[in-house]
Amino acid sequence: MSELHDIARGVRAGDKTLIARALNMIENKRPDIERKVTELLAILSEGSESGHGHRVGLTGPPGVGKSSLVAVLARELRKQGKTVGVVAVDPSSVHSGGALLGDRARMAFDPNDRGLFVRSLATQGALGGLAHPTHAAVEVLACAYDMVLVETVGVGQTEVAVTHVADTVVLVVQPGSGDVLQFLKAGVMEIPDLLVVNKADHGGAATRAASDLKSALATLRQVGAGDGEQAVLLTSARDNQGVEELAKALFSHRDAIGTSGVIARRRQGRKAWATDWLARRVGTLGVEALGGIANITQLVDASVARDEPTLSAVQALADRLSLLVT
Amino acid sequence: MSELHDIARGVRAGDKTLIARALNMIENKRPDIERKVTELLAILSEGSESGHGHRVGLTGPPGVGKSSLVAVLARELRKQGKTVGVVAVDPSSVHSGGALLGDRARMAFDPNDRGLFVRSLATQGALGGLAHPTHAAVEVLACAYDMVLVETVGVGQTEVAVTHVADTVVLVVQPGSGDVLQFLKAGVMEIPDLLVVNKADHGGAATRAASDLKSALATLRQVGAGDGEQAVLLTSARDNQGVEELAKALFSHRDAIGTSGVIARRRQGRKAWATDWLARRVGTLGVEALGGIANITQLVDASVARDEPTLSAVQALADRLSLLVT
Repeated sequence: MSELHDIARGVRAGDKTLIARALNMIENKRPDIERKVTELLAILSEGSESGHGHRVGLTGPPGVGKSSLVAVLARELRKQGKTVGVVAVDPSSVHSGGALLGDRARMAFDPNDRGLFVRSLATQGALGGLAHPTHAAVEVLACAYDMVLVETVGVGQTEVAVTHVADTVVLVVQPGSGDVLQFLKAGVMEIPDLLVVNKADHGGAATRAASDLKSALATLRQVGAGDGEQAVLLTSARDNQGVEELAKALFSHRDAIGTSGVIARRRQGRKAWATDWLARRVGTLGVEALGGIANITQLVDASVARDEPTLSAVQALADRLSLLVT
Repeated sequence: MSELHDIARGVRAGDKTLIARALNMIENKRPDIERKVTELLAILSEGSESGHGHRVGLTGPPGVGKSSLVAVLARELRKQGKTVGVVAVDPSSVHSGGALLGDRARMAFDPNDRGLFVRSLATQGALGGLAHPTHAAVEVLACAYDMVLVETVGVGQTEVAVTHVADTVVLVVQPGSGDVLQFLKAGVMEIPDLLVVNKADHGGAATRAASDLKSALATLRQVGAGDGEQAVLLTSARDNQGVEELAKALFSHRDAIGTSGVIARRRQGRKAWATDWLARRVGTLGVEALGGIANITQLVDASVARDEPTLSAVQALADRLSLLVT
């Protein structure tokens, strides 16, 4: 039994030490370690147990209280007997690099709870690719926990497309978030599955924000973007209000899209992940040498349709390239 | 005299037909055309005339009236005898792809004005690289016009880092832009050189937004991010208010950073452009084969310090790679 099989077994059993080891490997950029990660993911994708966890992405502007909301949501889910893995993606901000990690440290998580795992993931690095570690971490945690919560900051063209890792996408805003409305209407950001106005303890402004969001959704439905059926919830992480309703809405969304919906989304996400990974690895020159993007997309599609480990397939493709420097 | 020399001469002379041809080449993703663009940029970078234009980036959330503001600003600059080139970068939005182009078409530009050139630049394409066409277009227009206005939508981690193409960065918001404040404070977006609250015709809310932005800048100065000296202006594109003051503030900023400041910024931008271009072209595999990112950064730095055409230098580096598929 190889080391990777041991790690995979530990991940499936919810062994926090081995899960942490898997995530350390994912954050490591050394080519030999990255290859091991690809192998680990292939092992984890074997069998019907793989990735059973419900993947929930929570995104929104900074300052709306996402971290606190994730903390109370995780506590609520634990109360209901679900195991929970949390990834907070740190977009390596310009000035205050450590802000998110700081928030994270303030979260009141019980370190002795075996059914709860929390991790910040740094995604900095010009050439490393931002989306890859997030995808890989979510795949690992989804093998270990019932629910995987992915917290990302940003509105609009964030480099980690949270839709590509989540079965259910939640947009979190606070009262008075006019810009978010504009982003939705202008199509700069995708329409989430659920909208949450946090800081509902701010009174009437929260109710107003919720009703603004509802009209924005109605407008979008009129122009044919989205079905306008997304729930808009009010929460207060501070007062622990609306959190049970949020948990319920997450389950409802997953029920509504059904198993086929979940599979379709995950396939879409895996395609994006694999194609992006290959493009970053071999560049446009490599893509051309390997038969062009249309050809590669076809190969990736076929591999995803056969439920093969997609990253292994593109890794094999990259391995077919030899580079000579003259 | 080659075709490219003809185009370069036409660009320098402000020939709108040839400028449009250069921009068509820039939007074309065919490898042979891209190589021609690199050559054209090398020709344009010869001589002291190259890229004299003042590059101004205007960015901000959708719906704040950037397009209208750019239109009235261009008119004001023309009134003052400056020639003006405008690039609107279309981030290929998710739902309403044509929105920006639609705005553009509504702008009341005089098509017969030889001293004014307006162009929307589509930057879609997973593998094409978003920043490259914008950089190239700005280099071309800066050889033709006194002022180059680059309009990009977005707040935060936009893929076109407007700071890398602009001598002066202007953030445009509207009254009640709480999210922008949060983005600034959280360091998700870089601190601009000038802040503009547009739609000042909305009354007291605009004044309040301006004072909020001023306190945000003061807070940022306290934590050591930025000098807090950025001007905050009020404009109304609708009523043509504050536009003369905006033009004056642009000139003041350029005077304040001086020639050495402009050169330092442009070098920084060219480094980012060249490194990003190479990474997208050859991938992490190619970067490793060519000696690693530290080595490449050193080469790019040296080339930029010698004021060589940076893109030609990295193109030559990419040309040293041969790819074999086994």
